[in-house]
Amino acid sequence: MSKDITSREADYSQWYIDIVRKAGLADYSAVKGCMVIKPYGFGIWEHMRDQLDKMFKQTGHVNAYFPLLIPKSFLSKEAAHVEGFAKECAVVTHYRLKNAPDGSGVIVDPEAKLEEELIIRPTSETIIWDSYRDWIQSYRDLPVLINQWANVLRWEMRTRLFLRTAEFLWQEGHTAHETREEAIAEAERMLDVYARFAEEWMALPVVRGVKTANERFAGAEETYCIEALMQDGWALQAGTSHFLGQNFAKAFDVQFSTRNNSREYVWATSWGVSTRLMGALIMAHSDDEGLVVPPRIAPTQVVIIPVPKSLPALQETIDTIASDLQSLGIRVKVDSNDQDRPGFKFAEYEKIGIPIRLAIGARDLEAGTIEVARRDTREKQSVPLAGLSTHIQALLEEIQQNLYNRALQFRTEHTTRVDTWEQFVDVLENKGGFISAHWDGTPETEQQIKEETKATIRCIPLDAPTEAGQCVRTGKPSTKRVLFARAY
Amino acid sequence: MSKDITSREADYSQWYIDIVRKAGLADYSAVKGCMVIKPYGFGIWEHMRDQLDKMFKQTGHVNAYFPLLIPKSFLSKEAAHVEGFAKECAVVTHYRLKNAPDGSGVIVDPEAKLEEELIIRPTSETIIWDSYRDWIQSYRDLPVLINQWANVLRWEMRTRLFLRTAEFLWQEGHTAHETREEAIAEAERMLDVYARFAEEWMALPVVRGVKTANERFAGAEETYCIEALMQDGWALQAGTSHFLGQNFAKAFDVQFSTRNNSREYVWATSWGVSTRLMGALIMAHSDDEGLVVPPRIAPTQVVIIPVPKSLPALQETIDTIASDLQSLGIRVKVDSNDQDRPGFKFAEYEKIGIPIRLAIGARDLEAGTIEVARRDTREKQSVPLAGLSTHIQALLEEIQQNLYNRALQFRTEHTTRVDTWEQFVDVLENKGGFISAHWDGTPETEQQIKEETKATIRCIPLDAPTEAGQCVRTGKPSTKRVLFARAY
Repeated sequence: MSKDITSREADYSQWYIDIVRKAGLADYSAVKGCMVIKPYGFGIWEHMRDQLDKMFKQTGHVNAYFPLLIPKSFLSKEAAHVEGFAKECAVVTHYRLKNAPDGSGVIVDPEAKLEEELIIRPTSETIIWDSYRDWIQSYRDLPVLINQWANVLRWEMRTRLFLRTAEFLWQEGHTAHETREEAIAEAERMLDVYARFAEEWMALPVVRGVKTANERFAGAEETYCIEALMQDGWALQAGTSHFLGQNFAKAFDVQFSTRNNSREYVWATSWGVSTRLMGALIMAHSDDEGLVVPPRIAPTQVVIIPVPKSLPALQETIDTIASDLQSLGIRVKVDSNDQDRPGFKFAEYEKIGIPIRLAIGARDLEAGTIEVARRDTREKQSVPLAGLSTHIQALLEEIQQNLYNRALQFRTEHTTRVDTWEQFVDVLENKGGFISAHWDGTPETEQQIKEETKATIRCIPLDAPTEAGQCVRTGKPSTKRVLFARAY
Repeated sequence: MSKDITSREADYSQWYIDIVRKAGLADYSAVKGCMVIKPYGFGIWEHMRDQLDKMFKQTGHVNAYFPLLIPKSFLSKEAAHVEGFAKECAVVTHYRLKNAPDGSGVIVDPEAKLEEELIIRPTSETIIWDSYRDWIQSYRDLPVLINQWANVLRWEMRTRLFLRTAEFLWQEGHTAHETREEAIAEAERMLDVYARFAEEWMALPVVRGVKTANERFAGAEETYCIEALMQDGWALQAGTSHFLGQNFAKAFDVQFSTRNNSREYVWATSWGVSTRLMGALIMAHSDDEGLVVPPRIAPTQVVIIPVPKSLPALQETIDTIASDLQSLGIRVKVDSNDQDRPGFKFAEYEKIGIPIRLAIGARDLEAGTIEVARRDTREKQSVPLAGLSTHIQALLEEIQQNLYNRALQFRTEHTTRVDTWEQFVDVLENKGGFISAHWDGTPETEQQIKEETKATIRCIPLDAPTEAGQCVRTGKPSTKRVLFARAY
């Protein structure tokens, strides 16, 4: 076990924080609730972002950029939206500082007060739909398929690195459509993109579902989501895609001329994932030695270390291995730094989760072999140098698949069908994970269960079969099971 | 001449705004001074950003992300910095809104007042050096070579799309070094990266120089810059790289243990370019027909249009051409939309500056040729279909080079050596461009010339030879010519 990192069993929350900080992913800053994303953490985020961006473009989307600041009055234009977002906003009231008369520093210049306060965007529906009014006149201007990569800010009292911070990075798609059906299809298409990204790139199995009315995005008619399960049995919402109906078009008066020459309000979606995914990544795969990163999003996939320290005789072989791997598109680092012992390096690279470590010494060279250590299982194996690069390429795929399988198995083992309230409470307290149970469909029961147990309905799975049953809490009739869990 | 676009001769400022808006690059938003970067404009910015990011990584830099908000007191820690940046800040004073008692909307909750106001970053030296204090203990932690892509905000009263907006996008490099020499070398290296990017990718010739004390970045010991010349004879600062000495290390108490076990303050640089480059791009190359984009940063390099409208018989040939071009890495769009006439399409693609337009009709197909129109010279040529893709590949390079040569020739013709004040005023009023003249080296003379003529010293060119002369304004002795111009 790593000396730097608290074990999961001893203190799961501390384990998480230790990984984030000791693996150099992020840290707190001087501003309460705002984090610094450190280079290694940002490197992983870049790989995630670039892959998502590619998938957005493949599905016909383009990027644009809208203002950081939103006039206060915009928030009030959509009734549900203001309830959801007005409460936790950073408010800009002034636009100038001046020197304090007593020479003690700078103070806010009272004469530079804004006529209307501005809000730092907590999400951009309002400012974007204000632009769409000018952009959309006719059905020929539709669909509008725009995404934005941006920082957003929601004032949070209790923060946790990546999982809940005041400022975070995300992407937000905002699309405009001719018909209800087309908008719903778009919301579902983007949920599918998120699910494929989570499963194929982050090795993170997810449940696709819709939110209950209580948990819906403020201003949406339907919120689709992907839900993942963490190693402590808590759920994490990994992405959402909203069908917004005509709510924002009505709030911002965005109408278009239809093919029949009538006027209609535009149909909308929005969808987003954020740096919160970094938290999901950490909690899904990592162990007591440190971070575990799936190969496809690892900034460095293979590290090569000469043993002992640096050995000039090995340099040529190491260079050849590195360039062979690079020519297969594998991201390689050679660590010939001779200040640190190999054992120290091994622990450091385990801590930051490099998928494969290669170590080679004089004896290996003589035998024509190399030591291959995989991070996921921590197994070591001596492998012939001949054919090494194709072996490594296959092993990276195997690790990717193994991480997914392991997480899927964990989720399967931690998804429990429950039919009585007693069992519900017992599973929640003693086992955790997803609870598949009947619910009577009312917000009141959902709220009651939340207050009693802190478990919420994570989603109504899209693939949930129709099945007669009785609500686990009230005994009233139900036609479908939903997924409950305690959640981040 | 395009009907949509005012000619440069008639009204240069209006011409610029027309191009920005009619080519779909950007637009104003509901928030004063903040722009919306539209998809096509953002697409060009993405190509610029990605190439710069690649060059930063090739020179050993990594990306990270620091908070948007900065405690007000941080600005005061570096004496020159506060003077430069405190005056134009957006100030966050509250963190919550609430419903107005009269039901009229939302108001700022007076109870949610921050103890210390927060500033939206106008630049990030202060918040970053506050982190570096924790990150840097020893010479072994150096150098730190970090870049950040971010939005920043400087309150501006008079704004112009891309050139001067309250919020803009940029990158800011912030590096930390063991020695003065290493930091200076870094600042110079990054100036070189900027100059190569401007010349090789934006086809924009630039003068490399240093700023006078008056024009230096607030907190820098030396500001390096690249200066470009626009078609109206005004200069535009396209990028800056600052040697910050130990100023920020002292302000934030960032010391390290040296190789000799002493303690020393860390040496720093910072460097940045912004979406302002989009303004430079437009004003350097575009004409009265619309935007002209250098091929290397054009989101679409070649557009293929069937004439008339869409002709089913042509589809196969067009598909083959497109896939041949794509296989050479060329970015191609086929416009078979049959709602618009070819002539209309031609004008639209000229307006948005696609470097090469291919048009093909039945007669071309019979003759085995295609019409190739280049955007830079607006020349058309009939070219054999056989060997077309290699012809296009070479032509894209030729266009890139031609744009650079044209801009360089313009700059050469508009750089005037001047030795008398009379001549200085005459050239400034009647010809514009760079004026190469002697200056006595005092801030007072510089200020006087600025007040009298609105011309500023753009830079002291790095390659300016030592040459005895007399200040153009005061007649006092001088050893070097500097470059004056009116500037954006």
